[in-house]
Amino acid sequence: MIIFIQCTDQVGLVAAISRSLARGGFNIISLQEHVDNTENLFFIRLEVDKNTDTESLATDLEKILPTGALIKINPRPLKKIVVLVTKEYHCLADILVRNYFKTLGAEVQCVIGNHTTLQNICERFDIPFHLIETTGDAAASEQSVVEIIDGYDFDYLVLAKFMRILSPNFVGRYPMRIINIHHSFLPAFAGASPYRQAYERGVKLIGATAHYVTNELDEGPIIAQQITPAGHSLTVKDMVKAGKEVETAVLAKALKLVFEDRVFVYKNKTVVLE
Amino acid sequence: MIIFIQCTDQVGLVAAISRSLARGGFNIISLQEHVDNTENLFFIRLEVDKNTDTESLATDLEKILPTGALIKINPRPLKKIVVLVTKEYHCLADILVRNYFKTLGAEVQCVIGNHTTLQNICERFDIPFHLIETTGDAAASEQSVVEIIDGYDFDYLVLAKFMRILSPNFVGRYPMRIINIHHSFLPAFAGASPYRQAYERGVKLIGATAHYVTNELDEGPIIAQQITPAGHSLTVKDMVKAGKEVETAVLAKALKLVFEDRVFVYKNKTVVLE
Amino acid sequence: MIIFIQCTDQVGLVAAISRSLARGGFNIISLQEHVDNTENLFFIRLEVDKNTDTESLATDLEKILPTGALIKINPRPLKKIVVLVTKEYHCLADILVRNYFKTLGAEVQCVIGNHTTLQNICERFDIPFHLIETTGDAAASEQSVVEIIDGYDFDYLVLAKFMRILSPNFVGRYPMRIINIHHSFLPAFAGASPYRQAYERGVKLIGATAHYVTNELDEGPIIAQQITPAGHSLTVKDMVKAGKEVETAVLAKALKLVFEDRVFVYKNKTVVLE
Amino acid sequence: MIIFIQCTDQVGLVAAISRSLARGGFNIISLQEHVDNTENLFFIRLEVDKNTDTESLATDLEKILPTGALIKINPRPLKKIVVLVTKEYHCLADILVRNYFKTLGAEVQCVIGNHTTLQNICERFDIPFHLIETTGDAAASEQSVVEIIDGYDFDYLVLAKFMRILSPNFVGRYPMRIINIHHSFLPAFAGASPYRQAYERGVKLIGATAHYVTNELDEGPIIAQQITPAGHSLTVKDMVKAGKEVETAVLAKALKLVFEDRVFVYKNKTVVLE
Repeated sequence: MIIFIQCTDQVGLVAAISRSLARGGFNIISLQEHVDNTENLFFIRLEVDKNTDTESLATDLEKILPTGALIKINPRPLKKIVVLVTKEYHCLADILVRNYFKTLGAEVQCVIGNHTTLQNICERFDIPFHLIETTGDAAASEQSVVEIIDGYDFDYLVLAKFMRILSPNFVGRYPMRIINIHHSFLPAFAGASPYRQAYERGVKLIGATAHYVTNELDEGPIIAQQITPAGHSLTVKDMVKAGKEVETAVLAKALKLVFEDRVFVYKNKTVVLE
Repeated sequence: MIIFIQCTDQVGLVAAISRSLARGGFNIISLQEHVDNTENLFFIRLEVDKNTDTESLATDLEKILPTGALIKINPRPLKKIVVLVTKEYHCLADILVRNYFKTLGAEVQCVIGNHTTLQNICERFDIPFHLIETTGDAAASEQSVVEIIDGYDFDYLVLAKFMRILSPNFVGRYPMRIINIHHSFLPAFAGASPYRQAYERGVKLIGATAHYVTNELDEGPIIAQQITPAGHSLTVKDMVKAGKEVETAVLAKALKLVFEDRVFVYKNKTVVLE
Repeated sequence: MIIFIQCTDQVGLVAAISRSLARGGFNIISLQEHVDNTENLFFIRLEVDKNTDTESLATDLEKILPTGALIKINPRPLKKIVVLVTKEYHCLADILVRNYFKTLGAEVQCVIGNHTTLQNICERFDIPFHLIETTGDAAASEQSVVEIIDGYDFDYLVLAKFMRILSPNFVGRYPMRIINIHHSFLPAFAGASPYRQAYERGVKLIGATAHYVTNELDEGPIIAQQITPAGHSLTVKDMVKAGKEVETAVLAKALKLVFEDRVFVYKNKTVVLE
Repeated sequence: MIIFIQCTDQVGLVAAISRSLARGGFNIISLQEHVDNTENLFFIRLEVDKNTDTESLATDLEKILPTGALIKINPRPLKKIVVLVTKEYHCLADILVRNYFKTLGAEVQCVIGNHTTLQNICERFDIPFHLIETTGDAAASEQSVVEIIDGYDFDYLVLAKFMRILSPNFVGRYPMRIINIHHSFLPAFAGASPYRQAYERGVKLIGATAHYVTNELDEGPIIAQQITPAGHSLTVKDMVKAGKEVETAVLAKALKLVFEDRVFVYKNKTVVLE
């Protein structure tokens, strides 16, 4: 069972928490903690050996922890997700394959696309695919996404190369539950056509960034980033191709971290306890 | 001997150039070429086995190459450089050590600093150190740099963590001859305090960029870039420390490429023929 | 059209080859060459702009090149492959997905497995799956592989985590046409259970190696290698998991290089002209 | 103050230790722990906010920890080291520079060399250099090393490209106190001429390994490893050059970890708590 605590830092927190666990008969299998001294915040992720008596543990922890502590005990081990896509297959296919072989750490509930391009691959894996219209106004099209996903129980929305900007209204419905893969090494090349921007700037490395979606475009808390070399011999097209490999890898890594409940969010940043 | 050609692309350039070399009795040891199809530009770097008869080769090449071709034959193999510094030692010390053991590919003529911090290390390696005043106005201080370096024969000015912005007037005197190391993965975090910016943005990788200096701050052609992981556990200070290792490595790599005449510049980009 | 030449090195080869191309009306789009001075061997890969008159070009090149030159003109652009698997899905699924979206650079003719585990994923992608018996002797089982693949036209056999050792007799039938992915950074940890070996040795990085199969186990010419960090916190199981990501990436990269005719083999090594 | 504990794993160790610290008035600033489930071993590194009352803390910890626990409280923060070299400068110069600018985390007491090549650079940094004779037998030469270092107070011997094999007798005198940099990605290419071995095997990556020296040549516990790309275009000489950059970086990283008391050794492996 996973326990996850974020609170104001204080003297003796580890002692207090571990005593509380011992009282409840929980043995610590692994423990990662982090203190942000600037913000005076304490973060801890614990893996313990039993998953019963969680209510009395919660009550006990609430007593000993500072006011306002965020305590998460035993989050759902196998997450449920909805995936949004446009036309590019690489991230979606990677998710579908891991889902099919049960190594994703989550179950794909359905895929929503604004083109039919990826419908067939979903059907091959028996995953429901919902096509949304994009001919009308953006609000109407977002509304149809909301209607579809409201029919599902899910923990996270994964934007696997969904090439539309979501409205503040939509984002506000799912705070820190929407994960995006952006095809640049943010904050470099936010917005449209990052590979073209990278090509024109003549960078020697290109990258990808997985982040939570907030109302500031490409400005949400970063979960994972990676890069790949990009010399002068790469055209924009070549960069797009090379970039896809990094995008797939970075999104896979970020999802793994999120699904294993290793990611805390605060101040538009993440703490990743591995 | 190195030969270096940049010109409009045309059919048959490799054939024409290699025929011209054969006529002159030059045998090709190695050859790297690149064509930028968007700009219709051709770049070639050749290593040949003799370094005589360069004038007749130049005449011959000029005849067969398109008008406006840039031809560089037998550039000075061991470059001469002047290094500008402020207080941080890491890049300078790396340059001084390689210079001392004759593995830099260049000879350090002198070091110019706007603080005395690095005077002693220069003296230990018998390299002249010139202190420039920074109390007066920037123009006066730049003028004193010009006066010092005018006393030296040099190919490149290396800004090894020189923390001042050079004026267009100064930069214009040495076009594509000033090399800077910037402590971020450009174009992310241009300007001041890139590590603080990186810390505040919560990035998961930090980097460094070696580039030619132009009049646009941190916007010149990029020669080399590299990154290092930067998780949540790093404070700004830790990032500065980790960053220094990358800065040293990236500047060393860029200098090697430049000193070996492997870097072409065009359209605010570089072609690096390795 | 691709042209690919390997021969004894001589003065004037580039000039002679480019003249021959010019005579035939072929314009060079890109050119990569390499000289191994120790072995006195010359390698060149050219991309030219027309794919007719290949026979007269071949005749012309034979005349000007040293005796024994290996000349390959216009190899089949879209390769055909047969994939051999056991139970692990990651490399196979990556190949099937790229094949399905036509980004593999090859067409998968069929998959041969010695377990039924991966039959279903093949069927989902409409790729024939052949199950071979492994209960009898190894020779019989290999013979059944031969019988199956003899029914297909193919350029390469890809061992995508095929966990059996092939006999010299089998390997001899397809020289430099069998590509394997080995789950270690060769030559470290050849043979069985490389991740267990890596765990026991306490290495800080683990890797994967794609190579041509020869009669020496895990000793064939290496095409591509990559690594991933592996700290003390990884169990053998964790290493296996982390390793799968690298294996998939390395095999994908090696196949791309091979399918684009960028890999020369000599002296149990490869020259990769990118 | 650093506290460092290695013992048999038991239920409630973190609680017991943190309680003991709270009793003594020590507040935890940072904590990293690791459990090796296979060996049933527990490792913890703590940074606490005061460095007095260490004796009563030791007594208290001994009471609550399993028999045989290894407890290290407040190890010397600034280590003292002796460096052994042969002719290559890169690792030594890096150490001398960091030592000079007080960023090494240790103080270089002296350098011992079996050639005069590096004497001058030591003198430039005012570090005593001792030349040992290597003309006689190996035992005599080792004996002279022992005599020199016996004159110094030191925590670690650093072999910064010391190209001689030390006898079991010598190694036995300084258990887990001798750190070596080996110029390959161990266990690949142990022994002599690793770059030549790498060249001949045709690997696509080369590396370096920092490890504790034991009586098995190049078989001691690994502290850090890193790699760099090595394509077909590199000669053995080029590999040696490229390798030096990695060797310098890997040794610097390993020394940092060791000097900050982050490295535990058990079963010929290390646990590195960062």
